[in-house]
Amino acid sequence: MKTLILAAGKGTRMKSKYPKVMHKVMGIPMLNWVIDRANEVSEDVGVVLGHGIEMVKEIVPNNIKIFEQIGMKGTGHAVMAAEEFLEGDNTLILYGDVPLISNKTLNNLLSKHKNEDNDATLLTIKLKNPFGYGRVIRENNKFKKIVEHKDANEKELIINEINTGIAIYKTEKLREALKKINTNNAQGEYYLTDTFLYFNKVGIFETNDEFEVSGINDRVQLSIIENEARKRHLKNLMKSGVTIIDPSSTYIDYGVKIGQDTIIHPQTYIYGKTIIGNECEIGPMTRVKDCTIMNNVKVLRSECEGAEIYNDVSVGPFTRLRTGAVLKSKVKIGNFVEIKKSTLEEGVKAGHLTYLGDAHIGEKTNIGAGTITCNYDGKNKFKTSIGKNAFIGSNASLVAPVKIGENVITAAGSVITEDVPDNSLAFGRARQIVKKDWVLKKMKGE
Amino acid sequence: MKTLILAAGKGTRMKSKYPKVMHKVMGIPMLNWVIDRANEVSEDVGVVLGHGIEMVKEIVPNNIKIFEQIGMKGTGHAVMAAEEFLEGDNTLILYGDVPLISNKTLNNLLSKHKNEDNDATLLTIKLKNPFGYGRVIRENNKFKKIVEHKDANEKELIINEINTGIAIYKTEKLREALKKINTNNAQGEYYLTDTFLYFNKVGIFETNDEFEVSGINDRVQLSIIENEARKRHLKNLMKSGVTIIDPSSTYIDYGVKIGQDTIIHPQTYIYGKTIIGNECEIGPMTRVKDCTIMNNVKVLRSECEGAEIYNDVSVGPFTRLRTGAVLKSKVKIGNFVEIKKSTLEEGVKAGHLTYLGDAHIGEKTNIGAGTITCNYDGKNKFKTSIGKNAFIGSNASLVAPVKIGENVITAAGSVITEDVPDNSLAFGRARQIVKKDWVLKKMKGE
Amino acid sequence: MKTLILAAGKGTRMKSKYPKVMHKVMGIPMLNWVIDRANEVSEDVGVVLGHGIEMVKEIVPNNIKIFEQIGMKGTGHAVMAAEEFLEGDNTLILYGDVPLISNKTLNNLLSKHKNEDNDATLLTIKLKNPFGYGRVIRENNKFKKIVEHKDANEKELIINEINTGIAIYKTEKLREALKKINTNNAQGEYYLTDTFLYFNKVGIFETNDEFEVSGINDRVQLSIIENEARKRHLKNLMKSGVTIIDPSSTYIDYGVKIGQDTIIHPQTYIYGKTIIGNECEIGPMTRVKDCTIMNNVKVLRSECEGAEIYNDVSVGPFTRLRTGAVLKSKVKIGNFVEIKKSTLEEGVKAGHLTYLGDAHIGEKTNIGAGTITCNYDGKNKFKTSIGKNAFIGSNASLVAPVKIGENVITAAGSVITEDVPDNSLAFGRARQIVKKDWVLKKMKGE
Repeated sequence: MKTLILAAGKGTRMKSKYPKVMHKVMGIPMLNWVIDRANEVSEDVGVVLGHGIEMVKEIVPNNIKIFEQIGMKGTGHAVMAAEEFLEGDNTLILYGDVPLISNKTLNNLLSKHKNEDNDATLLTIKLKNPFGYGRVIRENNKFKKIVEHKDANEKELIINEINTGIAIYKTEKLREALKKINTNNAQGEYYLTDTFLYFNKVGIFETNDEFEVSGINDRVQLSIIENEARKRHLKNLMKSGVTIIDPSSTYIDYGVKIGQDTIIHPQTYIYGKTIIGNECEIGPMTRVKDCTIMNNVKVLRSECEGAEIYNDVSVGPFTRLRTGAVLKSKVKIGNFVEIKKSTLEEGVKAGHLTYLGDAHIGEKTNIGAGTITCNYDGKNKFKTSIGKNAFIGSNASLVAPVKIGENVITAAGSVITEDVPDNSLAFGRARQIVKKDWVLKKMKGE
Repeated sequence: MKTLILAAGKGTRMKSKYPKVMHKVMGIPMLNWVIDRANEVSEDVGVVLGHGIEMVKEIVPNNIKIFEQIGMKGTGHAVMAAEEFLEGDNTLILYGDVPLISNKTLNNLLSKHKNEDNDATLLTIKLKNPFGYGRVIRENNKFKKIVEHKDANEKELIINEINTGIAIYKTEKLREALKKINTNNAQGEYYLTDTFLYFNKVGIFETNDEFEVSGINDRVQLSIIENEARKRHLKNLMKSGVTIIDPSSTYIDYGVKIGQDTIIHPQTYIYGKTIIGNECEIGPMTRVKDCTIMNNVKVLRSECEGAEIYNDVSVGPFTRLRTGAVLKSKVKIGNFVEIKKSTLEEGVKAGHLTYLGDAHIGEKTNIGAGTITCNYDGKNKFKTSIGKNAFIGSNASLVAPVKIGENVITAAGSVITEDVPDNSLAFGRARQIVKKDWVLKKMKGE
Repeated sequence: MKTLILAAGKGTRMKSKYPKVMHKVMGIPMLNWVIDRANEVSEDVGVVLGHGIEMVKEIVPNNIKIFEQIGMKGTGHAVMAAEEFLEGDNTLILYGDVPLISNKTLNNLLSKHKNEDNDATLLTIKLKNPFGYGRVIRENNKFKKIVEHKDANEKELIINEINTGIAIYKTEKLREALKKINTNNAQGEYYLTDTFLYFNKVGIFETNDEFEVSGINDRVQLSIIENEARKRHLKNLMKSGVTIIDPSSTYIDYGVKIGQDTIIHPQTYIYGKTIIGNECEIGPMTRVKDCTIMNNVKVLRSECEGAEIYNDVSVGPFTRLRTGAVLKSKVKIGNFVEIKKSTLEEGVKAGHLTYLGDAHIGEKTNIGAGTITCNYDGKNKFKTSIGKNAFIGSNASLVAPVKIGENVITAAGSVITEDVPDNSLAFGRARQIVKKDWVLKKMKGE
């Protein structure tokens, strides 16, 4: 089977400079949702583009064939634009603005199409309010015809089974029918629906899942589909053994993997290729992107991107982990701490108001509050290395490149510019001076 | 037309020391919602106050006439308290605890009133559960009478069209009718509804929007109305071309303006007179108040109030912008950075753990991690000025008033107390001392 | 009355290493919800455990009797496992995975049981979709029998009143009936329901609250019950005079007390034994745990645990209060400030990038940006004491133990290692050196 996706429309009601199908659902352009489903059910996928074709091309994967519809003359016209693609046994037609169609439904549609040896098999749905949609008229429970809303008589208007537009065609029959349809209608367009006038045997597969066949025409509908897509994904995660306290404020990408008995607290975002192990607690108010997190890790109210976190680590609140942060087992990171491209060996603690960049910190070393690795001189980045069991006093400036040995103590408030050998005390701060009664004298104006 | 707003009740079920109509919906007292609508549809607006009149007066705009109802003897009594206001052709009666009434509905009500030349025209609605409400009895589809729930017979109880209390009256007819109503009823009050006994021609305008006519009696209802008001406003924003990923956790004030293709992420609050341009990304977890933000700006997980942000700026996460922060194009502000009353020229970077107050920073200058402008001496605030292309080393204290020239480098950990000429290196830090094996000796007790 | 709670199941669909009844709703294991209700309505409570009994035992309070069901042979078998507990007049059977049952409903059930002098009184509910449940068949409106779904005939299948499993029994009658039931059924189990075959007089109490009788079988159901439990609790708080702007993103534990006219903003969590006074504003984006907060306090976008906060204090945004933080009246704490085990007397200000640990700060003292109490030497914690009306310059390191007097000024960037007497100026920083044109020369390669 081949699949052709119609995605040429502008989507005026989106009020956007971007074509409609580029707008994102859960971070993925809606067209790519449809392409992904098409790839799952067919060998060969084409898309028909029109409005903003240069922009849309950028998001279409290389293995997808692109056809250009010039002049917007209806859905039939869109399919004609891909005439050369209409080869082989069967062709499925999907829509770039109907992103939640599932491969389960498409496979059911295809099975029915093949089992019944139909010329075309149409996906339908019964709607509570079918107003505006083309009604599917049956006779003896078999497809008879599609009647557009405005052409329907009273009896037909009561029918609530409607044409979703999604259908599988015998490719040859579709090609023939396309030659017969015309533009003698209200809008002067080629309607793909009109091809059904020329098929002998049409099957119907009825879905009851409205979201699967919902098109997106404005940003209100976009937000509704976004919400539903999210809900469906979270349901699957919950069923697999992840506790999600409040699915209504949890946002997890499709690629993310999460282990059993992990708890995701509210207002939490997990993006990209993140992998999380068992029995972790993530959130609330946490964003994690492209991280690898092992077991029994707590990440509270933090931002993590591109970090690697081993077992039994505790992060947050108000922590920022950036790319290349590696936290070995039992590391503890506290508030207002930023870590970038640094490895913290087992048991390191950095609790408060700290910036660690381009550093390597040995086992069990304690980083005092206010410590800053001065890793940048305006042009280049330099490395800081600290041995194990060291104690970095508060408010230290570690001017890289610098190497601080094992078991070293640096005094609070020091600027460390030179290497410090193992077991040494280092300090770099001025002696304190007190001017007695200076404040009193000043107040007296002396 | 004149509008009289009844707002004298206490709202016992609010369990509050403040009168009910002072409680806020989307940050605006519910009475002010009604006053705003009244101002849109009429020339002259009055409010009847009673409970807590001194407190409520404070939130009533100057151009609104205030009448005091002394003794709470019913809605009829409330209107009588404003007798001197009852002049001119028509009078609309609204309620201070029914905040979501729309001017569209009021205009429709008024049109009907005038077109039909009614003595009074009543706003009604059909409710699924009309229990407790006064039913509107029609005869030949015309208004016949209002029957209170407790007086209704079985047939009348089935009727689900109810009296919302909102109505427009010919002022003269209302004055006459008010003289005729009495307190011979269960509660010993003057019911405004009783005036309908004395009108010859009563029209009906039926709305189907329950929220428009919903009164607020407790804080559960307040939260429901709050939620609905927010939803309606966000829908309009989405339809205008703003993407709102999760409307259920997005809070945007009415006065805010947002440009096309801007994306608002979840858990984001935009307050006051904020203006946001096109193609920005705001949020998640961001609060913006009274800011001007141009195009293609990213504000991630931050607090911004009274800031001015030019094109292509990136803010956050964990940034705090305070009043008078001006970020010119391409500025980048990072985590745990606070900026107050400071201008950062094009391309300035301040990435980590920094406080900039009362400062001017020249183009492309880099502010190292941990930099603090010491702008306050306990009594006065002083200015810091830094030239362009400067490099402020990490953990610097810049003691204002101080002027640092162009192209200056200050060493990490320095306290800068005196001006630094252009192209100079400045440092103010103690030399490092190392005591070898001090830690070992200490451990041995030497 | 005694209550026996059946809680022996594994809950395979939870996909968890923990037995189902240990999973938490609003932070409380679901079994403990049921135990709490049982304690409210009866004198003696027992639980039947099975799967993971060693783990579950840990969460069962001491006063609850534990019985072990060995081999999972049905609900009848579970009750038999507690045979010795079946004494006294009446026994209520509850389920460890049905956490939202209310004492109001249980008391109603018990009243009916006693008034009607029933052998057993069953809690039933009418469901829109009774599929799968045992139907309660009535005759002349009285209990006739329970028919399992699979045994029901067409007429019985239409009945939508179902058996919730919750019932009160005359203990003696229950004991007798348990001896009569057998395992001659599809699953080869003892069904507790089968006891109803042997009672003469069975009463029915029907509830209409589906959540009260909803069992939890997977984490999707867990999240639904969590959401409902939260909603119910917040409703009660709102009715008591607390404004909750957005209940859908507010999380408040049962033990928390909140005063009148306090406003809780969205994305706010209040845990544990927190007490909050009147007219406070808490949130948005705030977590408060085990804190005592008096009146008119604002806590914005912060983390607070174990803190004591007096009247008129302002905290946040981005503040972290930890255990032992005591903020007296009118204290102001700002962004990126952490306070642990420290008392701040009236009017103290600490606005930016500060860590105060193990400190006492006198009245009206101002703590400059970047101040750090160096309270830890790697082994022990030491105290910092600062007198009233002091001014601690920015970026100070206060090396504890240290005592700074009243009315002291410390210069910006100082390391304070020794005590400072009252009224003195103290500084500990290097003199600034400027190397003119150093940058120019460097660029030229000199």
